[in-house]
Amino acid sequence: MLLLALDTATDQGSLALAADGRLLGEYSLESAGAYLQHLLPGLEALLQAVGRAPQDIGAIAVSQGPGNFTGLRIGLATAKGLALALSCPLVGVSTLEVLAAQFPFHPHPIGVIMDARRREVFFGLYRCPEETPQPLAGPERLPLEALPSRLTPPLLLTGPALNAYQDFLKQALAPGIQWAPPEMRHPRAATVARLGRARLLQGLTVPPARLSPNYLRPAL
Amino acid sequence: MLLLALDTATDQGSLALAADGRLLGEYSLESAGAYLQHLLPGLEALLQAVGRAPQDIGAIAVSQGPGNFTGLRIGLATAKGLALALSCPLVGVSTLEVLAAQFPFHPHPIGVIMDARRREVFFGLYRCPEETPQPLAGPERLPLEALPSRLTPPLLLTGPALNAYQDFLKQALAPGIQWAPPEMRHPRAATVARLGRARLLQGLTVPPARLSPNYLRPAL
Repeated sequence: MLLLALDTATDQGSLALAADGRLLGEYSLESAGAYLQHLLPGLEALLQAVGRAPQDIGAIAVSQGPGNFTGLRIGLATAKGLALALSCPLVGVSTLEVLAAQFPFHPHPIGVIMDARRREVFFGLYRCPEETPQPLAGPERLPLEALPSRLTPPLLLTGPALNAYQDFLKQALAPGIQWAPPEMRHPRAATVARLGRARLLQGLTVPPARLSPNYLRPAL
Repeated sequence: MLLLALDTATDQGSLALAADGRLLGEYSLESAGAYLQHLLPGLEALLQAVGRAPQDIGAIAVSQGPGNFTGLRIGLATAKGLALALSCPLVGVSTLEVLAAQFPFHPHPIGVIMDARRREVFFGLYRCPEETPQPLAGPERLPLEALPSRLTPPLLLTGPALNAYQDFLKQALAPGIQWAPPEMRHPRAATVARLGRARLLQGLTVPPARLSPNYLRPAL
């Protein structure tokens, strides 16, 4: 069964095609604000490269946020439109969980931070003793200044906000925190596919009309 | 400085473009035996997607093996041709090290296995206490049957041979060994870029005519 996975929650979008847990192809591109331009042509090119047609897609997994407002709207609209047209199952996956799942079997808590603009971050704390992340705290939306007190070693820190707020974090974080290497700080669609497949196997599908982005708005 | 990274050592090829440690784009495709067909068109498409031209490439990092004989020859020939034509620095990176580097900050030894055909594997044992892998044993070429006695928990096992020899390994391996998730068992060009950049900064470049694939031929 051909699974399409996509992530448009950050300034780096990612598309993947997988079959029975095997990755057939993946395409990731830094394309802040250009998802309308790149997403469908990228999908068509990837399908062609693996010798499949849109009609072969049997299920769709989409990164549901939190993250970039416009990116998520375009990604979810695309996933929902395809699922409706193809009458195939659709699952949503937490973007924070995807980022934590990129550190399987890690012995320490994994802190995930994403830029929420205006010096705020989306934050989730996970443990990932095997393949699947388990939440320890969050997800929530925090002022950047409230973050350091929440992060105590031993801890691995990942997520695109490591880039966005590098200078502040380098100064404010406790020593001994592990920083994810740069190429692992963005969500991979291949990881969306892995977590999405697990949710599909558990029957956690959602009707296209019911799936909405998770923006983690601040409490009023 | 635009860095091109490529890996063609396994049945899944991967291309990446990075600038100053930031990943601009990555394209990975399961394409056993089709590198001649996909590699240069993939590179052209990726360059176009990030708004760059071939002449913008300022350095090249290539996955040097061990691995697939034909894939490595095509990948290295392409990298060497581009480096010669562009007069840009070229570095080779061990494919086994790339696979280990995909588990940074991991507390246990990381065993990496790649299919060497005829029930043989390329094997390396690493630790990766921070970003960069440090060799503990190997690289070497082993009969598949000699592998289980070399792998004792605590250990994380990764590499494409987990797929190729899954049935044998499931039976023969000691319990408690951690298996890398499927989408992390192939080398990512983004990781080639990270390790390649470190080698470039150390001045470990190699003249195009001097770079050859590492096949780890068995001792005679």
